[in-house]
Amino acid sequence: MKIDGTPYRAVWVDEGDGWSVRVIDQTKLPWALEFLRLTTMRQAAHAISSMQIRGAPLIGAVAAYGLALALRDDPSTDAMECAAAQLAATRPTAINLRWALGRMLTRLRNTAAGQRAAAAYAEAAAIADEDVAQNAAIGRHGQALIQQAADAKAGAEMGKPVNVLTHCNAGWLATVDWGTALAPIYMAHDAGLPVHVWVDETRPRNQGAALTAWELGKHGVPHTVISDNAGGHLMQHGRVDLAIVGADRVTRTGDAANKIGTYLKALAAHDNKVPFWVAVPSSTIDWTVSDGVREIPIEERDASEVTTVTGRGLDGKVATVRVTPTSSPAANPAFDVTPARLLAGLITERGCCEATAEGLQAMFADRA
Amino acid sequence: MKIDGTPYRAVWVDEGDGWSVRVIDQTKLPWALEFLRLTTMRQAAHAISSMQIRGAPLIGAVAAYGLALALRDDPSTDAMECAAAQLAATRPTAINLRWALGRMLTRLRNTAAGQRAAAAYAEAAAIADEDVAQNAAIGRHGQALIQQAADAKAGAEMGKPVNVLTHCNAGWLATVDWGTALAPIYMAHDAGLPVHVWVDETRPRNQGAALTAWELGKHGVPHTVISDNAGGHLMQHGRVDLAIVGADRVTRTGDAANKIGTYLKALAAHDNKVPFWVAVPSSTIDWTVSDGVREIPIEERDASEVTTVTGRGLDGKVATVRVTPTSSPAANPAFDVTPARLLAGLITERGCCEATAEGLQAMFADRA
Repeated sequence: MKIDGTPYRAVWVDEGDGWSVRVIDQTKLPWALEFLRLTTMRQAAHAISSMQIRGAPLIGAVAAYGLALALRDDPSTDAMECAAAQLAATRPTAINLRWALGRMLTRLRNTAAGQRAAAAYAEAAAIADEDVAQNAAIGRHGQALIQQAADAKAGAEMGKPVNVLTHCNAGWLATVDWGTALAPIYMAHDAGLPVHVWVDETRPRNQGAALTAWELGKHGVPHTVISDNAGGHLMQHGRVDLAIVGADRVTRTGDAANKIGTYLKALAAHDNKVPFWVAVPSSTIDWTVSDGVREIPIEERDASEVTTVTGRGLDGKVATVRVTPTSSPAANPAFDVTPARLLAGLITERGCCEATAEGLQAMFADRA
Repeated sequence: MKIDGTPYRAVWVDEGDGWSVRVIDQTKLPWALEFLRLTTMRQAAHAISSMQIRGAPLIGAVAAYGLALALRDDPSTDAMECAAAQLAATRPTAINLRWALGRMLTRLRNTAAGQRAAAAYAEAAAIADEDVAQNAAIGRHGQALIQQAADAKAGAEMGKPVNVLTHCNAGWLATVDWGTALAPIYMAHDAGLPVHVWVDETRPRNQGAALTAWELGKHGVPHTVISDNAGGHLMQHGRVDLAIVGADRVTRTGDAANKIGTYLKALAAHDNKVPFWVAVPSSTIDWTVSDGVREIPIEERDASEVTTVTGRGLDGKVATVRVTPTSSPAANPAFDVTPARLLAGLITERGCCEATAEGLQAMFADRA
């Protein structure tokens, strides 16, 4: 998507040298736009582990390019396997990371050492391009839902922007381009459909306030940041037409694990008859899990994410401040599971379907 | 309640001089415990308007003492009426403020000027003492609910602490002592009942992280701070036994207006069969309002509360940092309304009752 009018992806090969890998340092957003140039596998691994880049699809693509960088230095089988293992260890729970590396190794193990680097760049580019195409498809299917909401507006509301609420960041910064939850919004906006986004702050890491607000603003999409507490009130008063969020994992029955707090918004949406959609590529569906609340383990992250907040001070410097008494402990479950019964459905690259075992089976008969 | 073992109220007359009014500067919490000495009506008015003291019951008591300070300087009727008007203007929407000043004037208008200051101190003390007694009664009735939750624990849970979730600050810092939502918790803790409190951070002003965590910690009540997003997940996993919150206004039908985000927690409690109680003195019930969501106007506060966070930096200094892009707008509805259908009931000074028109009428037949 665009930054102040210039199109970007979240990872790309440097046009100047044709081999180094460029990403945006997301730990600096929204305070500064800084580009990183990754020239070694170790730099790529560090970018992932330090969360300079994050978001499951983007992690996979950067890991793939990281392996290409490793093979540029040493195309031997030993070095390749060692590099893949090191990249896989950067974020132990990221599904896409291992998927992307597995796909790379399958392609490269039967390639002669002398051709491995070139083949790796080509495969990494394919992974990136396929992510973009998949998200664009999600965007087209989701755009139809926003169009429906626009068409349903009557009376004084007619012609007014469609209000979409989102939680956390499932935008282009979390993927190679388009994003998942935000893809329908970008598609609608680019098509001239008036759309306005309520951006949940998304404590404790503030990905909504920092990343979603930034990328929407830079692309020119009207939006308003709200505290995570505000969405229910807005829905009670008819100020949200639909909600679209991403997910880290969806069960075969349609339960969706996503950033902590998603469940609360889905409850409010259900209580106020606001359609609540989960936008995911089908690779996010875990066909082995039936009961999301009981079966999906929830990562407990460091308490410091709750006890502190990072932002930019009046002096322009980025600073971290503590918001709780030093003697008060904090707990930090990072995700929650939204039961399928609260969802309007899933937006996938193949189309929209009901968040039920039947709905998913019908759309993905080849996988289920 | 206690601060490191020493009992305090949130407002009191200085023991040394017998006339100046002492309060805690709550804008400094939890980073520093600083006591203010109010010696003039203007200082009392400033303490209220600058939110050095906040919480409806405490505002009422400090305003009453502020009028006593004014009469100490000039006991004439003109000066008294002028002082009352200035105090009433400090927080335009605070019901208790006008109630306390009205009660003071009723008592003082028929008192000779020479006796007015002494009468004002006596009436202010009565207002403070009655607030304490009322909250203690709420505490006793609510303690029984915590005891029931303790008694209901079976198997591996038997004897483990009762987990109570609360939102915002409805503790002793918001009243003269005990608090409303926290009174049952203090009563239970002081009675030796094991209790643990999940403290919602309560963005955007962080009264949970700053005030509730501080006062519970200083009194020695076990607690854990969580992001506002986390409560639903904890309830899904059986880690919340009951929720108790305060309210700014309750309708005759039992709808409760409280800090933004209360509605989301009540939805999660209802979805997980966790009893959700609202603790309020009966003065909070507005017998003229039937439909809370439609009829109660919601204050929209400054966007800067959402775009910034205040805390203590690594250098020990309190600082405010911006967490959103400078070009992103923010919205800040300060309260929401929880429909009565989601509540287990109300905890009042007369006892617990259903959050229904019938339940409230039965308990307050003399008022309804």
